Amino acid sequence: MSPRVDPLVLVKLGPGVRPETKRWLLRLIGTPQTDGGAGLLAHPGEEASGDIMVLSAPRCTLLRATEELGLCKTYKNGNMEAFSYDDRDNFKDSDNVEVFLTLAERQYIVKYELDGVRAQRDIRVPGLDVGCSIQPRDNIWQKLTSAGVIVDTVALHDQEQLKELSRAWYAGNQLVQPLDSVHSYFGSSLAFYFSFLDFYTWSLLPPAVIGLTITYFSGEVQKEMVESVSGSVAAEEDHSSLGISGHMIQALFSMLWSTVVLELWKRRSASLSYRWGTLHLTERFAEPRPGFHGDLGVNPVTGRVEPLFPEWQRDLRMALVSVPVVAVFLALVMVGMMVFYWGEVQVKRLHEDWDSLWTQTLIYLPSILHIVYTNVLATVYRTVANVLTEYENHREESAFENHLTGKVLVFTFFNCFAVLFHIAFFKQDVPLLRKRLASLLIVTQIINQFTEVVVPFLVDRFISAPNRAESEDDPQEDKFRNQGTLPVFPGLFAEYIELLVQFGYLSLFSCVFPLTAVLLLINNLTEIRLDAYKVCKLFCKPFSAPVANMGVWQIAFEVLSFVSVVTNCWLLMLSPQIQALCLDGEFSCSNVLLLAVAMEHVLILVKLVLSVLIPDEPGWIKKKRLHIEFKSMQALRQQKTILGPS
Amino acid sequence: MSPRVDPLVLVKLGPGVRPETKRWLLRLIGTPQTDGGAGLLAHPGEEASGDIMVLSAPRCTLLRATEELGLCKTYKNGNMEAFSYDDRDNFKDSDNVEVFLTLAERQYIVKYELDGVRAQRDIRVPGLDVGCSIQPRDNIWQKLTSAGVIVDTVALHDQEQLKELSRAWYAGNQLVQPLDSVHSYFGSSLAFYFSFLDFYTWSLLPPAVIGLTITYFSGEVQKEMVESVSGSVAAEEDHSSLGISGHMIQALFSMLWSTVVLELWKRRSASLSYRWGTLHLTERFAEPRPGFHGDLGVNPVTGRVEPLFPEWQRDLRMALVSVPVVAVFLALVMVGMMVFYWGEVQVKRLHEDWDSLWTQTLIYLPSILHIVYTNVLATVYRTVANVLTEYENHREESAFENHLTGKVLVFTFFNCFAVLFHIAFFKQDVPLLRKRLASLLIVTQIINQFTEVVVPFLVDRFISAPNRAESEDDPQEDKFRNQGTLPVFPGLFAEYIELLVQFGYLSLFSCVFPLTAVLLLINNLTEIRLDAYKVCKLFCKPFSAPVANMGVWQIAFEVLSFVSVVTNCWLLMLSPQIQALCLDGEFSCSNVLLLAVAMEHVLILVKLVLSVLIPDEPGWIKKKRLHIEFKSMQALRQQKTILGPS
Repeated sequence: MSPRVDPLVLVKLGPGVRPETKRWLLRLIGTPQTDGGAGLLAHPGEEASGDIMVLSAPRCTLLRATEELGLCKTYKNGNMEAFSYDDRDNFKDSDNVEVFLTLAERQYIVKYELDGVRAQRDIRVPGLDVGCSIQPRDNIWQKLTSAGVIVDTVALHDQEQLKELSRAWYAGNQLVQPLDSVHSYFGSSLAFYFSFLDFYTWSLLPPAVIGLTITYFSGEVQKEMVESVSGSVAAEEDHSSLGISGHMIQALFSMLWSTVVLELWKRRSASLSYRWGTLHLTERFAEPRPGFHGDLGVNPVTGRVEPLFPEWQRDLRMALVSVPVVAVFLALVMVGMMVFYWGEVQVKRLHEDWDSLWTQTLIYLPSILHIVYTNVLATVYRTVANVLTEYENHREESAFENHLTGKVLVFTFFNCFAVLFHIAFFKQDVPLLRKRLASLLIVTQIINQFTEVVVPFLVDRFISAPNRAESEDDPQEDKFRNQGTLPVFPGLFAEYIELLVQFGYLSLFSCVFPLTAVLLLINNLTEIRLDAYKVCKLFCKPFSAPVANMGVWQIAFEVLSFVSVVTNCWLLMLSPQIQALCLDGEFSCSNVLLLAVAMEHVLILVKLVLSVLIPDEPGWIKKKRLHIEFKSMQALRQQKTILGPS
Repeated sequence: MSPRVDPLVLVKLGPGVRPETKRWLLRLIGTPQTDGGAGLLAHPGEEASGDIMVLSAPRCTLLRATEELGLCKTYKNGNMEAFSYDDRDNFKDSDNVEVFLTLAERQYIVKYELDGVRAQRDIRVPGLDVGCSIQPRDNIWQKLTSAGVIVDTVALHDQEQLKELSRAWYAGNQLVQPLDSVHSYFGSSLAFYFSFLDFYTWSLLPPAVIGLTITYFSGEVQKEMVESVSGSVAAEEDHSSLGISGHMIQALFSMLWSTVVLELWKRRSASLSYRWGTLHLTERFAEPRPGFHGDLGVNPVTGRVEPLFPEWQRDLRMALVSVPVVAVFLALVMVGMMVFYWGEVQVKRLHEDWDSLWTQTLIYLPSILHIVYTNVLATVYRTVANVLTEYENHREESAFENHLTGKVLVFTFFNCFAVLFHIAFFKQDVPLLRKRLASLLIVTQIINQFTEVVVPFLVDRFISAPNRAESEDDPQEDKFRNQGTLPVFPGLFAEYIELLVQFGYLSLFSCVFPLTAVLLLINNLTEIRLDAYKVCKLFCKPFSAPVANMGVWQIAFEVLSFVSVVTNCWLLMLSPQIQALCLDGEFSCSNVLLLAVAMEHVLILVKLVLSVLIPDEPGWIKKKRLHIEFKSMQALRQQKTILGPS
């Protein structure tokens, strides 16, 4: 085995793949892109008989793809500039790709090249049925996957780097995460997730401190919380004015805090994106994603021949198919909740009427049925969302991801918060809300961390691991093969939605339960470590497309931060202290309502002004961006002259 | 006089300017830019003795400035592309500047060059005091203006083009405005104003039709309106449910209408901007505006040496000086209104107590004092706003304009609407509001059109015109001189604010007076013609910097459209029909209030979604823009290779 070729990607072949098919495949992979191949390197030790292939990429392919993706790299003058293949010698370290490109980037490029291979003419794959023929412009890798020739494509771990990373990340008592190493090893989408987790966790400190202070100084609130958790709602009337002001301060603070944090995160995100070279990605100019289909035509933007799909048709599909279907599912959630409430009442009445052990157990039936229903619905919905988004036929991978995430996100959020909103706005029962919130905060977090980490850990340790017992003197190939047996990384959706739901508990309903931030802070400090452990140890190394920000998640957090003003003002108005004032006749009900509405409008205005006033990118990044724009404007003018009319 | 040199700009010199000074000035104007001059042409018939100079510009200066400003012109393939001087031969008509550049563009370029002349070393102006010396990097034109050498710089009319334009614009019964001719003669800022006026006027048709229908079908509303205008507020209780639904439909429609219209206008504005070649202006890369000052340094974006002024210092000045001062003025408006109300009550009481002719006249005193106070305040504020914006030291002319406009806008708007808001939200008196609105709509429009057009017309006809009696055989120079005696064009602020206030009446309070749109439609149909006449005949031809949109006005209209939801929901809730329901006990007051708040939130959400869903630019412009981006990305990569490391 030659030490020069570093193993990047493992391709698992189907069980019945014949040697001639594999030989043809290896040839295809090695053919340069200009001749319709992938321009990659197969591992030198490769034989035609094995059922895996280990791939790497030559320097030239890597650098060309870097230009195509629009990655920025350090220029010799120290600035980050969009990489240009022809100008490669002026970029720092461009002669050593293993330093120039991160591991994650190199692995993504291999996958990008494999996904991009398209047939240039009719192809008969040797060793396959005649039925499986490949027509011109067909995506070969997709065809082979659906024909069962290729089972899986997996990024390979680099055990040494991994060990180093885990030592710096979660093994000790580090307070700072090694974000640059995470980026270089796992790629930008994971790195953005961990950066946000980190940023968000630290930004929980102020509300946690305020929550603790309020709890400490107003014994009332403390007592009240204990009562609400323990279930008793008595002695709700004797709150001093200190309680009121504590609640108010907490709510006001958390409403403004969320906007400031999200705006500061945008700035941080912009500087991370600059540092990681993803500020000028050119996905919109690249080839469309593999699943994209349409009539062949000339792209008016790039002038290349590729499938085209009119924008209005996509809009039409979204408006006439996606939106109604999503609405139906949201309605189903509502119906489920209604039936659950109705069932609960029925069962309770039955229990009161009969009062037997049988009816005693029946009491839990509605809850159990509701949980089952919700979970089944969520699973079905996820499939439906995938089909819908595929049907919408987005050109760019990121657009596809964002639309899929958006759909699932709305549903999941609705699923999580429908009950809480129902309690807050229809039942108008603050103590019940407080109780529910406290139990959700504590129970779901424990369950989440358990299912997310402990279950995979146990599965890994006691079911999978014995099957892939490893020893130092195993052949290299077996080690690669073992990596392929790890479960596939399930993506960051679950992680982000957990944060979003947390953020929702905190910002939407924080004023009823001041210790939320403290609980979340504790939870997140362990969450960072557990997530890091999980991603390093329990799954295949994921491929990670370079991204410039959190995408649709950013929007979701911001929307939540504005909705929080509505809920908080409403809850403050419902709070027993205010209601007591109302009943005492000091204020009329409508005046209190008017005051709450006025306060809400002012707060929303303040948040809007804040988010406009805090610039989305730091000044120095704005200067760099303008500089790049200026350079490219100049270049366009000069090019016309030098190259003449084209 | 040579027919090749077309007279573009007239410079009026001060009365005491000596011939040697004028000779020096003519030499400075003729010197190429590289040697510190303006690179312009003086009129060939020019003598050193006259007190005016007529300037023109050579082709080379015009084309270079076109590139500097980032104007787009038709490329030989029919697309609009950013003009490049070195590639000039591939642009259509570039050999004939009078076709290639519009009159407005050529005149603006002359002014741009004059404003951009900076001293390269210490200069002693011949014929001036020793005290008035010009130091390196001083703006010569500004210095000469403050020294009294230059009194005024005026763009010259082209009588033939003007005659043609007026025939196509306002002389006949045209329904369509010749916007392209307006753009080429008066420049893009005026053309955008008239395009918006046109677009907005046509878009008033649907609300006008709805308003008329509602008025026709519900006699109640009609009666009610007549009553309210005539001052009686009786018989307010006997409205049928038709009246309610009419009001509601009107309000709902106008709330959604405003968002749709503004979004469609954005699309129209983008395509106009593409057609007029102002989509890719490069003001941010050009030299700073003449009034900008700061320490000399290297601009990190363009790499040129120029005055720099740190962003944070500007932000600090805005936050610590501008915002408090503006707030003080807004408070003064409030105080004025309070004192007015207080005075009115006092005077009324006095009149009741004494009841003499003396107190009878005294009744009008508060109103008169309030009007005087408001006007004085507005005048003082305008000066203060100018000083403040100058102090903020904006780098770009457009930023300066936008900040100045924004400041004056907020104040003027507050001044106009404070009383109406006070009536609507504090007095909660719908009939009074309706009366006030109707009188404002009718009276202010008549007054506005009178002061804007009739007064200047009379002044022009009877005071100025006799002084510049013109005849066919006058020397050309006298005709030029006569143009200089016209009053300076006061800018578009008054026109835009009129539209904004109109739009405010329509969207904020439309539900109390359904015929608003009809009145505005009639008003605007005459307004278009009067404004056109005014701009063509009564003022000096203004210089007009190329702009890509309406700037800060777009934002002002959009803000208003969102505020309108709040006011309309509030007014609907206050409407006598709903209040009657409330009193009848069918609904409790707080439930009505809750319903109104819920409706408001839903409407704001719908408007937000609408404004996100309607793309801000048509699909074909997006493609063109992406194409230009793609080209410049490619150019940047190729340039690096061809020119080598720079």
